[in-house]
Amino acid sequence: MTLDAVVNNETFAQFRKRSVQRTESVLGALLPSAHILPARLHDAMRYSTLGGGKRIRPLLVYATGACLGVPLEHLDRPAVALEMIHAYSLVHDDLPAMDNDDLRRGQPTCHRAYDEATAILVGDALQAQAFQVLAELGWGVPAEWQVQMLATLAQASGSRGMVGGQAIDLAAVGHELALPALEQMHLHKTGMLIRCAVQLALCAAGIGEKESKGAALLLRYADRVGLAFQVQDDILDEIGDLQQTGKAQQGADRSRNKPSFVTLLGLVEAQNYARRLLDEALEALQSWQTEADHLRALARLIVERNK
Amino acid sequence: MTLDAVVNNETFAQFRKRSVQRTESVLGALLPSAHILPARLHDAMRYSTLGGGKRIRPLLVYATGACLGVPLEHLDRPAVALEMIHAYSLVHDDLPAMDNDDLRRGQPTCHRAYDEATAILVGDALQAQAFQVLAELGWGVPAEWQVQMLATLAQASGSRGMVGGQAIDLAAVGHELALPALEQMHLHKTGMLIRCAVQLALCAAGIGEKESKGAALLLRYADRVGLAFQVQDDILDEIGDLQQTGKAQQGADRSRNKPSFVTLLGLVEAQNYARRLLDEALEALQSWQTEADHLRALARLIVERNK
Repeated sequence: MTLDAVVNNETFAQFRKRSVQRTESVLGALLPSAHILPARLHDAMRYSTLGGGKRIRPLLVYATGACLGVPLEHLDRPAVALEMIHAYSLVHDDLPAMDNDDLRRGQPTCHRAYDEATAILVGDALQAQAFQVLAELGWGVPAEWQVQMLATLAQASGSRGMVGGQAIDLAAVGHELALPALEQMHLHKTGMLIRCAVQLALCAAGIGEKESKGAALLLRYADRVGLAFQVQDDILDEIGDLQQTGKAQQGADRSRNKPSFVTLLGLVEAQNYARRLLDEALEALQSWQTEADHLRALARLIVERNK
Repeated sequence: MTLDAVVNNETFAQFRKRSVQRTESVLGALLPSAHILPARLHDAMRYSTLGGGKRIRPLLVYATGACLGVPLEHLDRPAVALEMIHAYSLVHDDLPAMDNDDLRRGQPTCHRAYDEATAILVGDALQAQAFQVLAELGWGVPAEWQVQMLATLAQASGSRGMVGGQAIDLAAVGHELALPALEQMHLHKTGMLIRCAVQLALCAAGIGEKESKGAALLLRYADRVGLAFQVQDDILDEIGDLQQTGKAQQGADRSRNKPSFVTLLGLVEAQNYARRLLDEALEALQSWQTEADHLRALARLIVERNK
């Protein structure tokens, strides 16, 4: 199978392009216009959300939905809600009191382009809007599944999910972490939101996590992909092309004394680890036929990307 | 009618005490224990939420529910979700990039007691948990009403609600605001969350806002009470006893050149205005009998409080 395996007459490259376009068009439609008061806040929300990005989480929602036969229009709001949570977390992570980053995707970070107070409020408002987007689905999903989506997103975002991972990460700067502790941190910081992408698509398909063997396998796929994503991120932080990654500095994690898979395992072993996680992700998809080909291609993309 | 009018064999003072106790006990049970990792984050979440406070929003949820005949245990999670949103907003408002406050209720603010990064994450995690608390109601409310509660809370919290009001407030520092603009700011910053308290109780009672004349009147009550609350806050900022309010300084709004009802109207006119808003709030309740007595007493409490 190549990256351009065809599902429903569409190559992965085409599917990916379409997913990113859908994500950005729905984000643009759902975010308040910069003409609506408070204009500066809304402008900054759009700046922080519409300025590019890989849109990996929405893509995973769409690819899982495609595998389960869910119409893409039923996945738009779950995909965009997840991306809003991700975008808010980047805005807050970049703040001076956190990572103190000046650049994000080659552009000034929100607090640099606006100011620190605005960046705090942008993150707060994006989080609220993520939940609003899911609470106003507007298609015929049973309300019980909608509630399940909201609960899942809240769990994945909160103190025992993404925010908790960020707290563990901050506490770890300057400390040695063993591999299990590093994995635990990433499981929370990025893993739970990636897992949430699959969970939201399962809800949209009306499939309960506990009742279906397929659901368990898809979640296993998500967990391996989530970890592989982070390992590859650490690899790119070390060796990535600054033009491609949009970062200000190579080896930023190392110079900040942040624990990473590269500092812990060395570059070659980290690359082997990413490859092993990819194999395990693909293995979890064994019982599916071609309908899972976009998921397979997405897993490869995550490990083989250069930005 | 006095403050101690009796509803269901209970005076308002008793009802208020019971509501505050319920709020704090449910908050304590739903917030992750400080023994759960990340421990420092959870400790700081509890510090910021359980350290006192008037619990006005939960009290309004309970009092509206009592007026509508909703069992109090059906109101616990809506009340607590609202209080978590309120608590997160205080933690973020106190940050150096925002109001830069060292004290809250006489205690060090979250970023003073912990650190700035932790305070940002505490706010983020409390917001996620507020939605989680509503998404995991656990009693037999129809899922449609639960979704409605979540949508209402998200709208009231976001860029066209509380966060938007905070953005307008920040932009207004050092500027002259006319009364309508000041009211508009407060309508967002505090008003929508207070209105949300009534809306959540209406959802718990299964009453649609648009279908019921009673709902419109209760919302009118909420809007007048919300504004009165802010007018009284400004009055207390000017003349309140520091021991009672727990603030570091009297006249802080004035010295920061923050627009307030007192700087705009003068003290006496601001007091008259609060009284007029109270009268309008009470007028909105005219069609109810004694079942609305706690709501009436609450409106009085808001205007007559000294902290």
